[in-house]
Amino acid sequence: MFAPVYLDHNASTPADPAVVEAMLPYLSAHFGNASSRHEYGRAARRAIDEARNQVAAAVGAHASEVVFTSGGSEANNLLIKGAAGRLKPGLLAVSAIEHPCVIKPAEQLCKYGWTLARLTVDADGRIDAENFEAVMTARPKIVSVMLANNETGVLQDVESLAERSRSTGAWFHTDAVQAIGKLPVDFRRLNAAGVHALTLSAHKIGGPKGAAALVLDKRLDLEPLIAGGGQERGLRSGTENVAAIVGFGVACELAVQRRDALAQHLLQLRQQVECGLLGLGAVLFGQVAERLPNTVYFAIPEIDGETLVGHLDRAGYAVASGAACSSANPEPSHVLRAMGVAPDLARGAVRISLGRGNSEAQVAAFLASVQATVTRLQRLTAMAV
Amino acid sequence: MFAPVYLDHNASTPADPAVVEAMLPYLSAHFGNASSRHEYGRAARRAIDEARNQVAAAVGAHASEVVFTSGGSEANNLLIKGAAGRLKPGLLAVSAIEHPCVIKPAEQLCKYGWTLARLTVDADGRIDAENFEAVMTARPKIVSVMLANNETGVLQDVESLAERSRSTGAWFHTDAVQAIGKLPVDFRRLNAAGVHALTLSAHKIGGPKGAAALVLDKRLDLEPLIAGGGQERGLRSGTENVAAIVGFGVACELAVQRRDALAQHLLQLRQQVECGLLGLGAVLFGQVAERLPNTVYFAIPEIDGETLVGHLDRAGYAVASGAACSSANPEPSHVLRAMGVAPDLARGAVRISLGRGNSEAQVAAFLASVQATVTRLQRLTAMAV
Repeated sequence: MFAPVYLDHNASTPADPAVVEAMLPYLSAHFGNASSRHEYGRAARRAIDEARNQVAAAVGAHASEVVFTSGGSEANNLLIKGAAGRLKPGLLAVSAIEHPCVIKPAEQLCKYGWTLARLTVDADGRIDAENFEAVMTARPKIVSVMLANNETGVLQDVESLAERSRSTGAWFHTDAVQAIGKLPVDFRRLNAAGVHALTLSAHKIGGPKGAAALVLDKRLDLEPLIAGGGQERGLRSGTENVAAIVGFGVACELAVQRRDALAQHLLQLRQQVECGLLGLGAVLFGQVAERLPNTVYFAIPEIDGETLVGHLDRAGYAVASGAACSSANPEPSHVLRAMGVAPDLARGAVRISLGRGNSEAQVAAFLASVQATVTRLQRLTAMAV
Repeated sequence: MFAPVYLDHNASTPADPAVVEAMLPYLSAHFGNASSRHEYGRAARRAIDEARNQVAAAVGAHASEVVFTSGGSEANNLLIKGAAGRLKPGLLAVSAIEHPCVIKPAEQLCKYGWTLARLTVDADGRIDAENFEAVMTARPKIVSVMLANNETGVLQDVESLAERSRSTGAWFHTDAVQAIGKLPVDFRRLNAAGVHALTLSAHKIGGPKGAAALVLDKRLDLEPLIAGGGQERGLRSGTENVAAIVGFGVACELAVQRRDALAQHLLQLRQQVECGLLGLGAVLFGQVAERLPNTVYFAIPEIDGETLVGHLDRAGYAVASGAACSSANPEPSHVLRAMGVAPDLARGAVRISLGRGNSEAQVAAFLASVQATVTRLQRLTAMAV
């Protein structure tokens, strides 16, 4: 099989072999419904219980605070709509750079009497303190600010934001899907600062697609998005995806074990990528902000991002022109718009997100390929002019 | 490994080896996010497209009518809440014997101005025609009646019900999760009669947990339950669970190929089970109604269902005391209550649901075990008196 070099780990990651191995028995012999009161059911229940402990341990939470969902998008929708369902409509504040699965449900609530404030960011993609303060004085009931942005990798000081938000009585949520496995994420500490809920996803950390979690302060009462048989303390009904949950648990355990060494490895590769790209005249978005060790988001002036991604794909490098799930959308990234990046430059945006399997040699070859492609595209542009 | 005889296929089924084999590459090498615009992403997208064709073909639908979800509970919640989200509140009618994942979202809507009519059933578990007619004259906006009941296996004449409902202008949904693979299910024909949406689930037909579908008449506009990146025509956002969807596609293909032979096999075993149980003085719920070929729901007077299930579990037989997802609930089955079964008898309810792997010899041994257990329990009861 032709296997291009994969540099798109913020979109999805390969499942670790240990994860797949742990899942297999739950795809075949241990196929029971975890709600069944016989040995097949109990075996499934025990596996879910163990995974719940593993996921909780990875973020310093208690197992009873973990609510499994089918994915990060579901977890974020559950938090936003579920919290709103238990409150009288009011003000809801989410950052302008959230993933669409936070922004869209927030927009849906406007139909039901809610008002949406989009927290602005500065040119480096960090929450604008003045705007945040102004929104807080209007006393929002729900606030959601992600720990690390999926496109730029820029980190937010969620602890401080939550501390400020707490005095307003708001429920504070953070999407930690991109942060876990690359940074320490401690729900106990965040919770003490005023964070009430946190989203995690398996397939971003070497786990399978189909499992994720909302880690939840139990004082935060949610209206279930999926109601029915009453699984997950009534917060998420539906037969549990046992195999995926088992894989998620193992992935969490591995992610924590490997985190510090991985972060160092990724940071070295990131610096290599960044040096190379700067040498080609690239602009690095969020360059001076604290960022994930694996993410480089850049544009080379006059070079279209989609075109560059297409050429790199044919050359054997898998990179993204923006968040994967909006790649079908030709609009420039909403994250870059929020950062005030000029539309022409934003259309050049390409994201490199490194992972465990990447090496220095791969990055060197990739940079040579970018250079060759850019030279070719620049020559074509010059000829067209 | 100790492997009890599995007689609980309405709760979940073992995945077919061919299903697991088809899934494996999508758990490892083909790990791309289907929204990514590089080779890893395209490989995932192609696999989803193929599975969509397989699922559509299994029910005579068009691929564009298939909306993948994470499970049947999600699909049913999406239909009920999604349809309601696009309508002015009014009357909603669901049968009293629906799965909780239809009844609970319907109940949630009452908070938002909707009125809920529970369609009653007769003593055999079939929709009561007079009551249905009365509810229809009140012009419901949404109607949901399942094709086959998960506890009793009783079938409804959904085609006729939909034809009657059509004149009211209601959106008509049917939960076909238990029907597919055991009966022919033809969405084109049902749609012509007035059925606008149909729910399917992979893990009930030898597919994996984590994939299901809402087959949807495109005139039915739904508000998405999970909003975000815009996957599934905007109706269900979130990174697709590629492996589970691939497994679902293969399971659908196998289910249709095997359906007629399987139904005959199951019906023979069902008759064997029923003869044996009637000889022990059992009452068979829905006995005279047209039922799924694999389901026997019974009670033996004076014998507690939970107790019998526990004894059979220890003897090596996995059966259910009711719907798996409400087995934690000590209340007698809402299905039997709706059928007017006396609470004392309902507490004796035990469900046998046969599957492809079951044999005549297993059923004979199972019946001997039931007889021995019942004799022992009756002796204990007699001693206690």
